[in-house]
Formats: sequence, C-alpha cells, structure tokens
Amino acid sequence: MTKTASGFKREKFETQIQRFSAGKPIANETDQLAVEEPLEIRIGFTENGKTVYKAVSITMRTPGADAELAAGFLFTEGILESPRQILAIKHCGKFPNNQNTLRVDLAENVRLDLKRLTRNFYTTSSCGVCGKSSLEALKIAGAKKIRQTGLPKISSEIIHQLPAALRKHQTVFDETGGLHAAALFDLAGNLIDLKEDVGRHNAVDKLIGQQFLENHLPLSEMILFLSGRASFELVQKAVMAQIPLVCAVGAPSSLAVEAAAGFDLTLLGFVREKRFNIYTGFEKIY
Amino acid sequence: MTKTASGFKREKFETQIQRFSAGKPIANETDQLAVEEPLEIRIGFTENGKTVYKAVSITMRTPGADAELAAGFLFTEGILESPRQILAIKHCGKFPNNQNTLRVDLAENVRLDLKRLTRNFYTTSSCGVCGKSSLEALKIAGAKKIRQTGLPKISSEIIHQLPAALRKHQTVFDETGGLHAAALFDLAGNLIDLKEDVGRHNAVDKLIGQQFLENHLPLSEMILFLSGRASFELVQKAVMAQIPLVCAVGAPSSLAVEAAAGFDLTLLGFVREKRFNIYTGFEKIY
Repeated sequence: MTKTASGFKREKFETQIQRFSAGKPIANETDQLAVEEPLEIRIGFTENGKTVYKAVSITMRTPGADAELAAGFLFTEGILESPRQILAIKHCGKFPNNQNTLRVDLAENVRLDLKRLTRNFYTTSSCGVCGKSSLEALKIAGAKKIRQTGLPKISSEIIHQLPAALRKHQTVFDETGGLHAAALFDLAGNLIDLKEDVGRHNAVDKLIGQQFLENHLPLSEMILFLSGRASFELVQKAVMAQIPLVCAVGAPSSLAVEAAAGFDLTLLGFVREKRFNIYTGFEKIY
Repeated sequence: MTKTASGFKREKFETQIQRFSAGKPIANETDQLAVEEPLEIRIGFTENGKTVYKAVSITMRTPGADAELAAGFLFTEGILESPRQILAIKHCGKFPNNQNTLRVDLAENVRLDLKRLTRNFYTTSSCGVCGKSSLEALKIAGAKKIRQTGLPKISSEIIHQLPAALRKHQTVFDETGGLHAAALFDLAGNLIDLKEDVGRHNAVDKLIGQQFLENHLPLSEMILFLSGRASFELVQKAVMAQIPLVCAVGAPSSLAVEAAAGFDLTLLGFVREKRFNIYTGFEKIY
C-alpha cells in the first residue's frame, strides 16, 4: 500500500533576471522562483463491478506532498472521511514526465456521492487537461503571441510611478486591508481603470471584462499592474487580452515566467519602492 | 439590452473586533471587512431550438462589477471572443436576496465548444450551489461546530510568538519570495508542521491531508496559522478538521468571519509584530 507519492519534489526554479533600482539596471543575476505546475486529482472507484476513474480537481500547485494535497482536498471537501477509505495514492505517469496527474484509489466498500463530485466544486480558471502541459492548453485556448512590433520601449521612471498611483486609488483596500487590486495603465503611466476583489483572478477578470464589453480589446498599448504575486493564470489572462507588459508587486511563479517568455509578454516583479526585477523582455525597459 | 448588472455593490462589511497589543486588549471597535460572496456564472444558449442554461463557474468574489467579471472570465477562458456574442447579462434573482447568480445570455448565432466548457476549468474548492448560501453548503458537507468545551483559554503571549516561528521555517519562501505558508502549532505554541505552496488553499490541504493520512484527525488541540489572508474556504477547511483556532497574518473576509462565528471557531487576523485582532471567540484569548 502506497499512500505517499514522494520522490518528486521540485519547489524551486532558476531563471535569469535583471534588477533595476532608481531608474538604472543594477545587476544581472540568477533568481529562484517558486514552482507552479498543474495537478489533476483523479479518484478510482468501483461502479457496477468495474474500476472507473474520475477527475475531480485540477489545481495549480507547487510540486511536493502531492498525496497529502489530494487527501486534504478530498477530506476538506467532504468527499472522504477516513484514511481507511484510501487504498493507494500514486502519480499516473512516469518520473519526471508526468507527475502532474495523481490517482487516489479508493477501497471497495467506499460509496461516493457522485452528485456532490460533479456539482460541488467551483472553478477559478482554465488549465491544462491531463497529458498536456498548461502552455499547450493555453495555445488551445486561442491565445496568440503578444505583438510587440512598433511598441515603444518603456522608461523605468514610468514603472517606478505605478505602485503609488495604484495605492492611491485602492479605496476599499484602505478600509479593509483585505483586497487584491488589478489596474490598467497606458504606456505613459496614466491610470485607466482599477478593480478590487477578494480574489486576484476576479480583479483581473473585472478589469479585462469591462474593456471587453466596451469593445476596447486588444489592449495592445496597456500595462497590467497587480497588487500581489504573478501566477500563470494572471499572465494567461493578460496574453488573451494582448496586454504586452505585466507588473506585479510580488514575485512571479515559474509557470508565469515560462508563459510570459512563450508569448513574448514582458513581465516585471517586485515592483515597489523605486525598484523592480525584469523576468522577461529585458530589451523593452530602459 | 442590458450588459451591466449594477445596482448591487456591497464591498464592505462591518464587524466588532477586539485589538490586542503586547499581551493586552487595547480596544473594542468596529472594523470593516472586504465582502466575499459566491457568484455562479451561467450561460444561456440555444440548443436544438431551445434555450438552455449551463453553470460554468462558481467563484468567491467581492460583489460589484459582476457583469464585467463574468465577461472577463468568459473571454480570458477562450469561451467568448466578442461582446457582440452577448445579448444580456443579468442577475437571476431579485435584489437583495439573490444577487449571487448571474445569467449571460448569448446571441443566437453563437456556437460554443461545450467540451471546453465541461473539461477546461479547474477547481479550487467546494462552494454553495446556486440558491443556497455558502454556509448552507458547508453544513451539507458534513461540517460540525467546533467543540470548544474543555479547551483551555490561550495566552496572547503564545499568539505573539507564532509569526516568528512560522517565518523561521519558511525555507522556500526565503529563496523565492513567492509562496504561501500554512502551519500547525499545538496549543503551547510548538510548531507541528508547515507546508508551502503557490496556492494558499493547497498549503492548507497539504497540512491537513498529512494529518488525515496519519489518522490524527480531529485536530481539536491545534492552531492553524496562515501566512496571508483568511478566506471562507480556508476557514471551511479548518472547520472540517475541527481546528479550534485560526490565526492569519492578513485580514479575514466577511464570509470567513461569518463562517467562524457560525461554527464556533476562534479567528484572529493581522497577527504580526506583537499585535492581532480578534474577530470571533473573544473569550478564548487572554
């Protein structure tokens, strides 16, 4: 009986960055990023004498403790109530190519509320289907490379002004301390719109959704500014809207940087206090 | 043609809190929280000459700009590509009782990739089904009130020690700056386990999942410490594991506080630098 799916743990990812401070590039160096990869959780159970598998969740996670993640998810969602209901938890694929699908095989006597399984999950974003990487899924979604041709280079002085401009307009955050913000700026650093939400993907959806409804897409001459970290799904949303430059107050994940590189999007992180790091698109910032 | 579903905007929520600093209660006051409520997005389209509705997403969001949120979600997921594909966006229920379900009616000529709709979303958590509140859904999941009987009161001095203990063990965060952490402490403030992940719900699932697999549940004498904000889904997970006390470095949402109050869980926020706020369970902390 295997309950742990260890032997695969990749929490860090190395990438080359350029650090800017007070309008000047101060260093080119190797930086470590938190790894973000999709995990599909499948449960295997007996139905009419046959073993069937059902995908119950795809989550963007940092690899490591995948069996614990699956067990905790199934328990806290009310699907499983005892470890005795689990026969084994193992990755479906072979190391290192497919550690992003996990099987939870249930004991024979376990009865599942299938209605609960199909209805009682809520979704936050699109993602790779099992067997495909997230980047492949992103291509399928119809995302195109950012068209950078003809776009002017952007001064670091403009970037340095964005955090204060964002903060000034985060009215609900001021009062609650509990909201993520996403803002659109034009390439001269003028604030176009700002949305706040408890969910960072929601703030970005509200921002892009308004531009979509007003028929302003593609947003080829806009900057997306994020009050938190940059994840894959936020970069994905920017790519769909053809936003060429994403600035985040926090760190990007490995998959955010890979997606930005793959779609020619310029990605900046730790944009605060007159400094920032460039992760992709070094040549676009001066 | 109605494309905006405005008229309903409730971003803030008032609650009574008690502030502690350096081991002493320093104030009882009214605090404002960011509102968190579920939004179910349904699309209405024509199939074999009939209009059918399909729920495509339930997301925990801050009410306001719901139409923009739905439009941005459907566009960035690759489901819609032009605002002309939308006839109307409106809340299904009557104000103020059911503003948590939104209908996106599509133009007749719009053809949807239904396979994409059913497969290409990933889930992060359970939630209320349309027509039920999240708290009702939580009851359905089999969650029971926390049994606080017999639990000792907890000294604020123990709480004050937790942030430094967490920070000391966040090894991956140190190197990447990009991970959420969740930790379990015993009631004397000893660190039991810590998990890190790009997703905060994943960190909690990993933490609880390990205890589940080792058959240590319920966690009735444990403290859950979160490196970020406290959302409804994190409180829900704590309730499922019967963790009596949740401490967050950031702010809680409205629904996190409502869930904590409903299930007799003690919830502390802004736990940092020798201070914290108590949101529920004032009598448990001295």
